[in-house]
Amino acid sequence: MRILHTADWHIGKGLAGFDLLDVQRRSFEKLRQVAKDKKVDAMIIAGDVYDRALANAATVRVVNGMFKTLNLDDKLPLLVISGNHDSPARLATGREWFKDTGLHLNTEVGESLTPVVIGDTQFFLLPYFDPIDAQHAFDDDSLTTIEAAMRVVVAKMQERFDPDKHHVLVAHFFAAGSTHSGSETKVNVGGLDAVPLDLLDPFDYVALGHLHNRGAVHAEKVQYAGSLLKYDVSEVNQQKGCYILDTDTMTREFVPIVQEPEFVHITDSFANITAGSEPLTDAANYVQFTLTDTAVIPDLMNRLRKVYPHTVGVDRATHVNIEESVHEFDEQLDPMKLLNQFYGDTIGRDMDADEQAWAQKTLTAVVKED
Amino acid sequence: MRILHTADWHIGKGLAGFDLLDVQRRSFEKLRQVAKDKKVDAMIIAGDVYDRALANAATVRVVNGMFKTLNLDDKLPLLVISGNHDSPARLATGREWFKDTGLHLNTEVGESLTPVVIGDTQFFLLPYFDPIDAQHAFDDDSLTTIEAAMRVVVAKMQERFDPDKHHVLVAHFFAAGSTHSGSETKVNVGGLDAVPLDLLDPFDYVALGHLHNRGAVHAEKVQYAGSLLKYDVSEVNQQKGCYILDTDTMTREFVPIVQEPEFVHITDSFANITAGSEPLTDAANYVQFTLTDTAVIPDLMNRLRKVYPHTVGVDRATHVNIEESVHEFDEQLDPMKLLNQFYGDTIGRDMDADEQAWAQKTLTAVVKED
Repeated sequence: MRILHTADWHIGKGLAGFDLLDVQRRSFEKLRQVAKDKKVDAMIIAGDVYDRALANAATVRVVNGMFKTLNLDDKLPLLVISGNHDSPARLATGREWFKDTGLHLNTEVGESLTPVVIGDTQFFLLPYFDPIDAQHAFDDDSLTTIEAAMRVVVAKMQERFDPDKHHVLVAHFFAAGSTHSGSETKVNVGGLDAVPLDLLDPFDYVALGHLHNRGAVHAEKVQYAGSLLKYDVSEVNQQKGCYILDTDTMTREFVPIVQEPEFVHITDSFANITAGSEPLTDAANYVQFTLTDTAVIPDLMNRLRKVYPHTVGVDRATHVNIEESVHEFDEQLDPMKLLNQFYGDTIGRDMDADEQAWAQKTLTAVVKED
Repeated sequence: MRILHTADWHIGKGLAGFDLLDVQRRSFEKLRQVAKDKKVDAMIIAGDVYDRALANAATVRVVNGMFKTLNLDDKLPLLVISGNHDSPARLATGREWFKDTGLHLNTEVGESLTPVVIGDTQFFLLPYFDPIDAQHAFDDDSLTTIEAAMRVVVAKMQERFDPDKHHVLVAHFFAAGSTHSGSETKVNVGGLDAVPLDLLDPFDYVALGHLHNRGAVHAEKVQYAGSLLKYDVSEVNQQKGCYILDTDTMTREFVPIVQEPEFVHITDSFANITAGSEPLTDAANYVQFTLTDTAVIPDLMNRLRKVYPHTVGVDRATHVNIEESVHEFDEQLDPMKLLNQFYGDTIGRDMDADEQAWAQKTLTAVVKED
């Protein structure tokens, strides 16, 4: 049996004020085509269908249309959970009617214990949840972390395991050891929200949503689908797409989905970016620019958007590799020496004579004000 | 065939900050019982299911539960339209799945032309709409008023009339000649939003929502269901409930539904209201007070709520019958005479000597400031 695994659609999310609904619709149509081409038996959507709990009406219409297209037009069974960006109550609207056509939608941790059986596999649909939700669902105040709650959840799921079936967990959480990127909302810090991988051992496969980088965790049977689109400049070099899980072998194949227009990151001088005989990327693309210039450039964003209407943002290149480092901060140094060091670290050359003079004059004035 | 006709549930609406979800649930359960007792074949819900386009999650859960209870548990076919308080996109979530169990939900004017047939009757489900919606649906810019749009809508519905069936219109609008009360949102003024009754002649029956007073229009075959609850002090003397329509005779019977706790309006002196041996109404009831006192009463609301925790509001009685009138305003009169006249009109007696002295002193001071 072949199961398509996708997650983190974030329908309704924009980029720097640009509406992405059309881009999202195009990626969705490609996803739909993958499901057809690969003749999958069902589709897993592992949370964050919406980008916001209170989506606008246009977004609600688009998501409603997507579910209808897949489930009613294409007759594709769907296994859907809510993520931290979804409103459980709103996403659950109509769920009691959906089951009849094989649309299985779960937004409550308490209901995740009852598996959905398709062919040779039991699917446990575990939505994103807070420890407080687990405390209520299982009447157990001791479940103060996701890890503690997950120990209970997994144990209860194991009680329902049919030994003649495979067991797949569909979930939306932060698997311990994963790497965050820029566009996921960090709900907790300090690892309190992390699920240790060994807790997931009882399952034959774990189809995850939450992290947008599909390579965020390296484990034989635990896989993030990654987001449907590139939603942050940190994701522009990630290949987006979906997985096709073969439940006979519990192996998966990645199928890339290229978004249109693309989201790219260009690092170059303002002159090269704007004055070339042709643009450095298609004018329809969304672009984050990193300028190598150090001079002030007046009316920068407007001038960039004349050539690249979908300019998402612009920043300046530094020569610093933060990880490798930079000089230690030595507060014994006099301010002028410190400034020289910082300038060298970030700009990659020493201050010239004019800059030295300006800095010295300014520092003197600042010291006087003290 | 018997059809229950209800409307204007406004789930999520509160009274002066009090959450009414439990009161609404109780009235809903009584409505459900009426449907069972009267063995109705279907229920019409003629718009304004929600009070707000963006209801909170608790309200969404309650409404979802109500639809599930009626349609899936009680196996009752439902004929539902959106009102001006509903979000068409949100209310429509899941509608393509609902039809299979006889839940017919329409939120788009363009789709109202296809009737739902139950037994001997064609039901045309026309949601609340703006002229601009009709312009888009029928590609006709000339439809600038609801009346103009309704002429087109009714003509198109008539083309679909099956001569062997009855024809019932379910709609949510302001029927010309109806009387407004305090709690409906007035979307338009000047009659631009009104539908003339003679436009409705082609139908055997018109089941309306929008106005909260079920007696708002007097017509043989046009009926407002009225709101499920009393939502404004102007409605406290209205009997709320639902109608049972007999499609054989196209006659209807009103079945009252008493809300618990009740919403009452008490006019009395502060002393009688608070110092009696027992409260003037059950302490659980929602109460609007009109005080007959003229003296200042410190800490008024807190003292009322000690005895009547659900005090919704308080105002003062005047002796004025605005309709009958009061003295014409004569700007030739000197200010003291005008004040005397106004005092007499509103309080019902002349100013006493102290009041006269205070008023004279104040007026003198005001004139000096000029």
